[in-house]
Amino acid sequence: MLIMKKTAYKNPIPTVDIIIEIDGNIVMIQRKNHPYGWALPGGFVDYGETLEDAAVREAKEETGLDIIELQQFQTYSSPDRDPRHHTISTVFTGKGRGILKGSDDAADAKLFTKNTLPKDIAFDHRKILNDYFNHKNKL
Amino acid sequence: MLIMKKTAYKNPIPTVDIIIEIDGNIVMIQRKNHPYGWALPGGFVDYGETLEDAAVREAKEETGLDIIELQQFQTYSSPDRDPRHHTISTVFTGKGRGILKGSDDAADAKLFTKNTLPKDIAFDHRKILNDYFNHKNKL
Repeated sequence: MLIMKKTAYKNPIPTVDIIIEIDGNIVMIQRKNHPYGWALPGGFVDYGETLEDAAVREAKEETGLDIIELQQFQTYSSPDRDPRHHTISTVFTGKGRGILKGSDDAADAKLFTKNTLPKDIAFDHRKILNDYFNHKNKL
Repeated sequence: MLIMKKTAYKNPIPTVDIIIEIDGNIVMIQRKNHPYGWALPGGFVDYGETLEDAAVREAKEETGLDIIELQQFQTYSSPDRDPRHHTISTVFTGKGRGILKGSDDAADAKLFTKNTLPKDIAFDHRKILNDYFNHKNKL
Protein backbone atom coordinates (compact mmCIF):
# COMPACT_ATOMS: atom_id res chain seq x y z
CA MET A 1 0.00 0.00 0.00
CA LEU A 2 1.34 3.40 -0.96
CA ILE A 3 0.84 6.02 1.71
CA MET A 4 0.96 9.55 0.40
CA LYS A 5 2.00 12.20 2.84
CA LYS A 6 1.40 15.82 2.04
CA THR A 7 4.52 17.67 3.06
CA ALA A 8 4.35 20.83 0.95
CA TYR A 9 2.69 23.68 2.79
CA LYS A 10 0.38 25.69 0.55
CA ASN A 11 0.39 29.42 1.19
CA PRO A 12 -1.81 32.22 -0.09
CA ILE A 13 -0.07 34.20 -2.85
CA PRO A 14 0.95 37.84 -2.24
CA THR A 15 -0.13 40.39 -4.85
CA VAL A 16 -0.34 44.17 -5.15
CA ASP A 17 -2.94 46.49 -6.64
CA ILE A 18 -2.58 50.19 -7.13
CA ILE A 19 -5.09 53.01 -7.20
CA ILE A 20 -3.43 55.48 -9.57
CA GLU A 21 -4.80 59.00 -9.31
CA ILE A 22 -4.57 61.48 -12.21
CA ASP A 23 -6.26 64.87 -11.70
CA GLY A 24 -9.09 63.42 -9.60
CA ASN A 25 -9.58 60.39 -11.85
CA ILE A 26 -8.41 56.85 -11.18
CA VAL A 27 -6.87 54.45 -13.69
CA MET A 28 -8.43 51.06 -14.46
CA ILE A 29 -7.29 48.47 -16.96
CA GLN A 30 -9.34 46.08 -19.07
CA ARG A 31 -8.07 42.56 -18.42
CA LYS A 32 -6.83 40.37 -21.28
CA ASN A 33 -7.17 37.20 -19.21
CA HIS A 34 -9.70 35.48 -16.96
CA PRO A 35 -11.23 36.87 -14.78
CA TYR A 36 -12.29 39.39 -17.45
CA GLY A 37 -13.55 42.90 -16.78
CA TRP A 38 -11.99 46.12 -15.55
CA ALA A 39 -9.56 46.07 -12.67
CA LEU A 40 -6.99 48.10 -10.82
CA PRO A 41 -3.49 47.62 -12.23
CA GLY A 42 -1.58 45.02 -10.21
CA GLY A 43 -0.10 41.55 -10.10
CA PHE A 44 2.07 39.04 -8.29
CA VAL A 45 4.93 40.05 -6.01
CA ASP A 46 8.23 38.45 -7.01
CA TYR A 47 10.28 36.55 -4.43
CA GLY A 48 12.85 39.04 -3.09
CA GLU A 49 10.83 42.09 -4.19
CA THR A 50 9.17 44.56 -1.79
CA LEU A 51 5.48 45.33 -2.12
CA GLU A 52 6.36 48.93 -2.99
CA ASP A 53 8.68 47.87 -5.83
CA ALA A 54 6.05 45.42 -7.12
CA ALA A 55 3.38 48.15 -7.17
CA VAL A 56 5.59 50.58 -9.12
CA ARG A 57 6.67 47.81 -11.53
CA GLU A 58 3.14 46.57 -12.21
CA ALA A 59 1.84 50.12 -12.71
CA LYS A 60 4.56 50.74 -15.30
CA GLU A 61 4.01 47.40 -17.07
CA GLU A 62 0.24 47.67 -17.32
CA THR A 63 -0.33 51.42 -17.73
CA GLY A 64 2.97 52.95 -18.88
CA LEU A 65 2.81 55.36 -15.93
CA ASP A 66 5.44 56.29 -13.38
CA ILE A 67 4.20 56.60 -9.81
CA ILE A 68 4.93 59.32 -7.27
CA GLU A 69 3.66 59.71 -3.70
CA LEU A 70 3.20 55.95 -3.29
CA GLN A 71 1.36 55.07 -0.08
CA GLN A 72 0.04 51.86 1.42
CA PHE A 73 -3.73 51.79 1.68
CA GLN A 74 -4.91 48.40 3.00
CA THR A 75 -4.38 44.66 2.54
CA TYR A 76 -7.24 42.44 1.31
CA SER A 77 -7.24 38.70 1.98
CA SER A 78 -10.71 37.21 1.54
CA PRO A 79 -10.12 33.69 0.12
CA ASP A 80 -12.76 34.24 -2.59
CA ARG A 81 -11.43 37.59 -3.85
CA ASP A 82 -9.78 35.85 -6.82
CA PRO A 83 -11.69 32.92 -8.41
CA ARG A 84 -8.43 31.16 -9.40
CA HIS A 85 -6.63 30.87 -6.05
CA HIS A 86 -6.22 32.53 -2.67
CA THR A 87 -4.33 35.78 -3.12
CA ILE A 88 -3.57 38.46 -0.52
CA SER A 89 -3.36 41.89 -2.09
CA THR A 90 -1.73 44.93 -0.56
CA VAL A 91 -3.34 47.96 -2.17
CA PHE A 92 -1.42 51.19 -2.73
CA THR A 93 -2.37 54.68 -3.80
CA GLY A 94 -0.17 56.96 -5.85
CA LYS A 95 -0.18 59.70 -8.47
CA GLY A 96 0.45 58.74 -12.10
CA ARG A 97 2.89 60.58 -14.35
CA GLY A 98 3.45 59.99 -18.09
CA ILE A 99 1.28 58.76 -20.96
CA LEU A 100 -1.47 56.29 -20.09
CA LYS A 101 -1.43 53.22 -22.34
CA GLY A 102 -2.66 49.72 -21.51
CA SER A 103 -0.08 46.98 -22.12
CA ASP A 104 1.15 43.60 -20.81
CA ASP A 105 -1.94 41.99 -19.16
CA ALA A 106 -4.06 45.06 -20.00
CA ALA A 107 -6.00 45.29 -23.28
CA ASP A 108 -6.89 48.89 -22.48
CA ALA A 109 -6.42 51.49 -19.74
CA LYS A 110 -8.81 54.35 -19.03
CA LEU A 111 -9.65 57.01 -16.47
CA PHE A 112 -12.75 56.81 -14.30
CA THR A 113 -14.33 58.73 -11.45
CA LYS A 114 -16.42 57.47 -8.53
CA ASN A 115 -19.54 58.12 -10.62
CA THR A 116 -18.34 56.68 -13.92
CA LEU A 117 -16.90 53.32 -12.78
CA PRO A 118 -17.32 50.50 -15.31
CA LYS A 119 -20.12 47.97 -14.69
CA ASP A 120 -17.96 44.90 -15.00
CA ILE A 121 -15.23 45.04 -12.31
CA ALA A 122 -13.08 41.97 -11.58
CA PHE A 123 -11.94 40.56 -8.20
CA ASP A 124 -12.92 42.57 -5.07
CA HIS A 125 -11.86 45.80 -6.77
CA ARG A 126 -15.30 47.41 -6.45
CA LYS A 127 -15.10 46.90 -2.68
CA ILE A 128 -11.53 48.25 -2.62
CA LEU A 129 -12.64 51.34 -4.56
CA ASN A 130 -15.63 51.85 -2.26
CA ASP A 131 -13.28 51.70 0.76
CA TYR A 132 -10.96 54.14 -1.01
CA PHE A 133 -13.71 56.67 -1.84
CA ASN A 134 -15.09 56.41 1.74
CA HIS A 135 -11.59 56.94 3.13
CA LYS A 136 -11.07 60.03 0.89
CA ASN A 137 -14.39 61.43 2.13
CA LYS A 138 -13.16 61.26 5.73
CA LEU A 139 -9.90 63.11 5.05
CA MET B 1 22.08 16.68 -22.30
CA LEU B 2 19.42 17.20 -19.69
CA ILE B 3 17.83 20.62 -19.83
CA MET B 4 16.15 21.62 -16.59
CA LYS B 5 13.36 24.11 -16.90
CA LYS B 6 12.16 25.94 -13.83
CA THR B 7 8.37 25.98 -13.98
CA ALA B 8 7.38 26.45 -10.34
CA TYR B 9 6.92 30.08 -9.44
CA LYS B 10 8.28 30.94 -6.01
CA ASN B 11 6.28 33.48 -4.06
CA PRO B 12 6.98 35.37 -0.86
CA ILE B 13 5.09 33.83 2.09
CA PRO B 14 2.27 35.78 3.79
CA THR B 15 2.43 36.09 7.58
CA VAL B 16 0.76 38.16 10.29
CA ASP B 17 2.08 39.82 13.42
CA ILE B 18 0.01 41.44 16.11
CA ILE B 19 0.70 44.28 18.50
CA ILE B 20 -1.45 43.31 21.50
CA GLU B 21 -2.15 46.18 23.88
CA ILE B 22 -2.99 45.58 27.57
CA ASP B 23 -3.39 48.70 29.73
CA GLY B 24 -0.75 50.67 27.86
CA ASN B 25 1.69 47.74 27.63
CA ILE B 26 2.35 45.56 24.62
CA VAL B 27 2.82 41.79 24.56
CA MET B 28 5.98 40.14 23.25
CA ILE B 29 6.87 36.46 23.17
CA GLN B 30 10.22 34.77 23.59
CA ARG B 31 10.81 32.53 20.57
CA LYS B 32 11.47 28.81 20.98
CA ASN B 33 12.94 28.52 17.48
CA HIS B 34 15.45 30.27 15.26
CA PRO B 35 15.58 33.25 14.89
CA TYR B 36 15.74 33.50 18.69
CA GLY B 37 14.88 36.54 20.74
CA TRP B 38 11.70 38.40 21.60
CA ALA B 39 9.08 39.02 18.95
CA LEU B 40 5.52 40.09 18.37
CA PRO B 41 3.13 37.13 18.37
CA GLY B 42 2.41 35.99 14.81
CA GLY B 43 2.91 33.33 12.18
CA PHE B 44 1.99 31.97 8.77
CA VAL B 45 -1.38 32.60 7.15
CA ASP B 46 -3.14 29.37 6.17
CA TYR B 47 -4.43 28.90 2.63
CA GLY B 48 -8.14 29.90 2.72
CA GLU B 49 -7.75 31.95 5.90
CA THR B 50 -8.11 35.74 6.09
CA LEU B 51 -5.33 37.84 7.62
CA GLU B 52 -7.71 38.88 10.40
CA ASP B 53 -8.52 35.26 11.31
CA ALA B 54 -4.82 34.36 11.22
CA ALA B 55 -3.95 37.24 13.58
CA VAL B 56 -6.62 36.25 16.11
CA ARG B 57 -5.63 32.55 15.86
CA GLU B 58 -1.89 33.20 16.30
CA ALA B 59 -2.51 35.55 19.23
CA LYS B 60 -4.56 32.86 20.96
CA GLU B 61 -2.06 30.07 20.21
CA GLU B 62 1.02 31.96 21.36
CA THR B 63 -0.30 34.14 24.20
CA GLY B 64 -3.61 32.58 25.34
CA LEU B 65 -5.30 35.96 24.78
CA ASP B 66 -8.51 36.81 22.95
CA ILE B 67 -8.35 39.94 20.80
CA ILE B 68 -10.86 42.74 20.55
CA GLU B 69 -10.75 45.93 18.45
CA LEU B 70 -8.55 44.29 15.82
CA GLN B 71 -7.22 46.79 13.27
CA GLN B 72 -4.81 46.61 10.38
CA PHE B 73 -1.68 48.64 10.93
CA GLN B 74 0.76 48.16 8.01
CA THR B 75 2.30 45.46 5.82
CA TYR B 76 6.07 44.85 5.88
CA SER B 77 7.81 43.15 2.97
CA SER B 78 11.55 43.76 3.05
CA PRO B 79 13.14 40.54 1.68
CA ASP B 80 15.63 40.43 4.57
CA ARG B 81 13.10 40.85 7.39
CA ASP B 82 13.22 37.09 8.08
CA PRO B 83 16.62 35.36 7.74
CA ARG B 84 14.98 32.05 6.66
CA HIS B 85 12.93 33.15 3.65
CA HIS B 86 11.05 36.10 2.16
CA THR B 87 7.92 36.71 4.20
CA ILE B 88 5.40 39.53 3.88
CA SER B 89 3.81 40.37 7.20
CA THR B 90 0.60 42.27 7.71
CA VAL B 91 0.74 43.76 11.19
CA PHE B 92 -2.39 44.27 13.28
CA THR B 93 -3.13 46.05 16.54
CA GLY B 94 -5.72 44.92 19.06
CA LYS B 95 -6.54 44.78 22.74
CA GLY B 96 -5.82 41.54 24.65
CA ARG B 97 -8.34 39.93 26.98
CA GLY B 98 -7.73 36.90 29.23
CA ILE B 99 -4.71 35.43 30.98
CA LEU B 100 -1.32 35.96 29.32
CA LYS B 101 0.66 32.73 28.98
CA GLY B 102 3.29 31.90 26.36
CA SER B 103 2.65 28.63 24.50
CA ASP B 104 3.05 26.94 21.09
CA ASP B 105 6.11 28.63 19.48
CA ALA B 106 6.50 30.92 22.52
CA ALA B 107 8.69 29.90 25.48
CA ASP B 108 7.44 32.92 27.40
CA ALA B 109 5.18 35.95 26.99
CA LYS B 110 5.59 39.25 28.81
CA LEU B 111 4.42 42.85 28.84
CA PHE B 112 6.67 45.71 27.75
CA THR B 113 6.42 49.44 27.25
CA LYS B 114 8.20 51.68 24.74
CA ASN B 115 10.92 52.27 27.34
CA THR B 116 11.34 48.69 28.57
CA LEU B 117 11.59 46.81 25.25
CA PRO B 118 13.91 43.77 25.35
CA LYS B 119 17.38 44.14 23.84
CA ASP B 120 17.19 41.09 21.64
CA ILE B 121 14.28 41.54 19.20
CA ALA B 122 13.87 39.18 16.23
CA PHE B 123 12.93 39.98 12.61
CA ASP B 124 12.08 43.64 11.82
CA HIS B 125 9.93 43.86 14.94
CA ARG B 126 11.93 46.72 16.46
CA LYS B 127 11.23 48.77 13.32
CA ILE B 128 7.55 47.78 13.42
CA LEU B 129 7.32 48.84 17.07
CA ASN B 130 9.08 52.14 16.34
CA ASP B 131 6.56 52.81 13.54
CA TYR B 132 3.75 51.90 15.92
CA PHE B 133 4.93 54.19 18.74
CA ASN B 134 5.49 57.04 16.25
CA HIS B 135 2.00 56.48 14.85
CA LYS B 136 0.46 56.53 18.37
CA ASN B 137 2.28 59.80 19.06
CA LYS B 138 0.60 61.42 16.06
CA LEU B 139 -2.94 60.39 17.08
